[in-house]
Amino acid sequence: MSTNRVSIDLNADLGEGFGRWTLTDDEELLSVVTSANVACGFHAGDAATMRRVCELAAARGVRIGAQVSYRDLAGFGRRSMDVPAAELAAEVAYQIGALEVFARAAGSRVAYVKPHGALYNRVVGDAEQAAAVVEGVRLAGRTLPVLGLPGSRLHEAAAAAGLPVVTEAFGDRAYRSDGSLLPRGQEGAVVTDPAEVVERSVALARLGTVTAHGGASVSVRARSLCLHGDTPGAVELARRVRASLESSGVRVEAFV
Amino acid sequence: MSTNRVSIDLNADLGEGFGRWTLTDDEELLSVVTSANVACGFHAGDAATMRRVCELAAARGVRIGAQVSYRDLAGFGRRSMDVPAAELAAEVAYQIGALEVFARAAGSRVAYVKPHGALYNRVVGDAEQAAAVVEGVRLAGRTLPVLGLPGSRLHEAAAAAGLPVVTEAFGDRAYRSDGSLLPRGQEGAVVTDPAEVVERSVALARLGTVTAHGGASVSVRARSLCLHGDTPGAVELARRVRASLESSGVRVEAFV
Amino acid sequence: MSTNRVSIDLNADLGEGFGRWTLTDDEELLSVVTSANVACGFHAGDAATMRRVCELAAARGVRIGAQVSYRDLAGFGRRSMDVPAAELAAEVAYQIGALEVFARAAGSRVAYVKPHGALYNRVVGDAEQAAAVVEGVRLAGRTLPVLGLPGSRLHEAAAAAGLPVVTEAFGDRAYRSDGSLLPRGQEGAVVTDPAEVVERSVALARLGTVTAHGGASVSVRARSLCLHGDTPGAVELARRVRASLESSGVRVEAFV
Amino acid sequence: MSTNRVSIDLNADLGEGFGRWTLTDDEELLSVVTSANVACGFHAGDAATMRRVCELAAARGVRIGAQVSYRDLAGFGRRSMDVPAAELAAEVAYQIGALEVFARAAGSRVAYVKPHGALYNRVVGDAEQAAAVVEGVRLAGRTLPVLGLPGSRLHEAAAAAGLPVVTEAFGDRAYRSDGSLLPRGQEGAVVTDPAEVVERSVALARLGTVTAHGGASVSVRARSLCLHGDTPGAVELARRVRASLESSGVRVEAFV
Repeated sequence: MSTNRVSIDLNADLGEGFGRWTLTDDEELLSVVTSANVACGFHAGDAATMRRVCELAAARGVRIGAQVSYRDLAGFGRRSMDVPAAELAAEVAYQIGALEVFARAAGSRVAYVKPHGALYNRVVGDAEQAAAVVEGVRLAGRTLPVLGLPGSRLHEAAAAAGLPVVTEAFGDRAYRSDGSLLPRGQEGAVVTDPAEVVERSVALARLGTVTAHGGASVSVRARSLCLHGDTPGAVELARRVRASLESSGVRVEAFV
Repeated sequence: MSTNRVSIDLNADLGEGFGRWTLTDDEELLSVVTSANVACGFHAGDAATMRRVCELAAARGVRIGAQVSYRDLAGFGRRSMDVPAAELAAEVAYQIGALEVFARAAGSRVAYVKPHGALYNRVVGDAEQAAAVVEGVRLAGRTLPVLGLPGSRLHEAAAAAGLPVVTEAFGDRAYRSDGSLLPRGQEGAVVTDPAEVVERSVALARLGTVTAHGGASVSVRARSLCLHGDTPGAVELARRVRASLESSGVRVEAFV
Repeated sequence: MSTNRVSIDLNADLGEGFGRWTLTDDEELLSVVTSANVACGFHAGDAATMRRVCELAAARGVRIGAQVSYRDLAGFGRRSMDVPAAELAAEVAYQIGALEVFARAAGSRVAYVKPHGALYNRVVGDAEQAAAVVEGVRLAGRTLPVLGLPGSRLHEAAAAAGLPVVTEAFGDRAYRSDGSLLPRGQEGAVVTDPAEVVERSVALARLGTVTAHGGASVSVRARSLCLHGDTPGAVELARRVRASLESSGVRVEAFV
Repeated sequence: MSTNRVSIDLNADLGEGFGRWTLTDDEELLSVVTSANVACGFHAGDAATMRRVCELAAARGVRIGAQVSYRDLAGFGRRSMDVPAAELAAEVAYQIGALEVFARAAGSRVAYVKPHGALYNRVVGDAEQAAAVVEGVRLAGRTLPVLGLPGSRLHEAAAAAGLPVVTEAFGDRAYRSDGSLLPRGQEGAVVTDPAEVVERSVALARLGTVTAHGGASVSVRARSLCLHGDTPGAVELARRVRASLESSGVRVEAFV
């Protein structure tokens, strides 16, 4: 290790309830993460929840990001949809604008954009929808950073449009030897052993490497680690990841 | 009449389609009105339509207003709902924020707020929901004018919160002798004869008076006239109203 | 007490999740109740959940009822809405028809109808909406019993239309001396002490009486007791109520 | 021509409004077609509209079919969606059940099922979603005929499950030399000349052939012709098609 301390951002999805229903433990997660991906009403996140999460995030100094999604409450944004580019761009802008109101009212701003669920996965390889998401971010009028997978069409489109890109990695997902994620649904795609998640998270942050499916060490450069908050034990695990990062000399802080 | 020419604003609801469905003839109406009440997605108005209407309005120099509504696509926002104040305030802010993105992208801004349908009617007398709407406008962060009926709880709450109020009147609605509207559903509530609508509109603009149900002339002071655009012949009638106002020496221009 | 054993039905709301979100512990509740009020998609209850709950209920011999609601996912059906009678009747019929498919596929039938939330409260006193609900039940084509409060407009309309009425009472709600419920929001409206809920439930079932707010014993005749299942400890309390009823000699069984 | 008169069914999409919005001219179309594909609420079709269309169809002796769709009001069901099979099957059954209530209340029954829009196109080639649609039909409890393209995965799955299949063709769509449709978006995919639509419709009904893109005559066997009703002049064209069929000796009648 060099004497320079490395730093990492921790992001998680928040505000993913809707009306009577709750999902994420927003208060607890906000004590762990440095960036909050706030649901904007299309897959989850009613207006009152958005307001509350923004207030909590701003009070704790946590960055607020727009977690934009397909319009799909029934499917929680997890079903890929052939949305025409013009509609998708407008829907992305709509969601960012709605969240911006609550971020500003809380004394903060929307600081980045991260697609959710099926849209996140789709814009890894779908150049048309990736361009539509970027157009939506630009419509929203500021050069907001776009959080996503390294090498994704989304990041290509964002960079081409002059938007900053922020790469992320997952301590609880298996990687292939080319540095891509092993798709969910394949055996071993999700790492469930907490100790292993912690260890991989620390390696990703300190060394920029992870042990791939098969055993080789591969390089995965990421400025942010994504933590999951919607499963039992998730908050506790998130705390352990953060504590281990800090005790390993990693500075946990938001990307600029 | 004094030698000072009087002026009046003309407002109408626009962008009230949703996805495959269209309702208002937005292009034609934008050649008549000075203020466009743009649907924000809760009773009508998908994101792509909002974007297009904002572009058209900005190109024509027509003011963009947020036509905020209850969340009720199935009922077109025409069904009164007991929405708790905190939720309603957040929903109003959400809608304004979403529209602001498209107004700004078109080189304009959201210039005012007007409640739609059942919410419009409810905040005439319901002080709690009126206050919630005003809180929503304030959450959105600017001192936006609120368009509504003179003497409404909405205008009281807006004024108390330091928001400008803009009064409106209707050339095609019957008034009672106390200056209030004869409720829809009562016989004669809607004036259907085009010549009479034109005549009443000119009187409202020039003299601030209208012939009430019963025959007396009553004072109705309004800075804006509301034109309806969703019925057959509506655009043609709107054109006649505007032409008659102008030929009567009334200057048609946006408020402030 | 006579030597005749009394009997009581136990009903609870089930299937009140939506997509990714869950609320009620359906499997546990189905081991306690004799009648399941299944959400039909308007305030909660996606199609896959409806199917699963019907299969579970049928397998356990629990009656399936259509828990019909205003169309209001965002408000969980808890916001009173001025829905025109013709629309409300059609929406009630639509929900019953959708549920009937899953009830039949599971080898059962929709056996009764119970309005949910704000609609339940509204048809206590609103004769027009009460008539619309009854028209919806009749549209659905069978003479289904209607579960509701004794003396409600809903029961009047149902009886007038030849539909059976089933009265219900609440062990966890305070009653006024006239036998009506103390409205939620008033102090003491909800009984929170488990022992007291059990005791009141047994008294309601065995004696048809309950101690009213103020201390007097009032007569409340009910064929069914409503148990709540969406709060922590609710299932455990429901079990205790059932066990105490049975050990008190009350036969727990569905109304015919 | 043999002395045996041939017969053909005419189907069209109906009831495709939603709340305040209307689209199809239901009354006029019901005087032309023999089978009405009634929207069931997922892409269009509120409950009150479904009721009214069923009443009109039953009064005219027109067959009622369930036009089942992805849950997508904003996209009018025209966006392909990766809905998991279990959810899709349940949603199809839900829609059929809801429509059945209104068909029965009008003295008729749901007589067949036809997928709408993107789902219709998807189940031409997607065996998993095709099987899910068929499972949904079977859940609805009757052996309803399934209307679709000859050779589609939908028809394979339906036949394998013992459901009758009904083939349809389009007088206003271009065909390739293998009998498949030229995809929309390709030049010439839609036949716009009314005289040509009429001529092709008669050839499809009388001879079971159509002139393909390129000029060859290809065999397209269809028991039903699909007429479109949502464009200007559509109803008039539908009338002309029916009149020409009848004057050509084709009997226009519903499939059994």
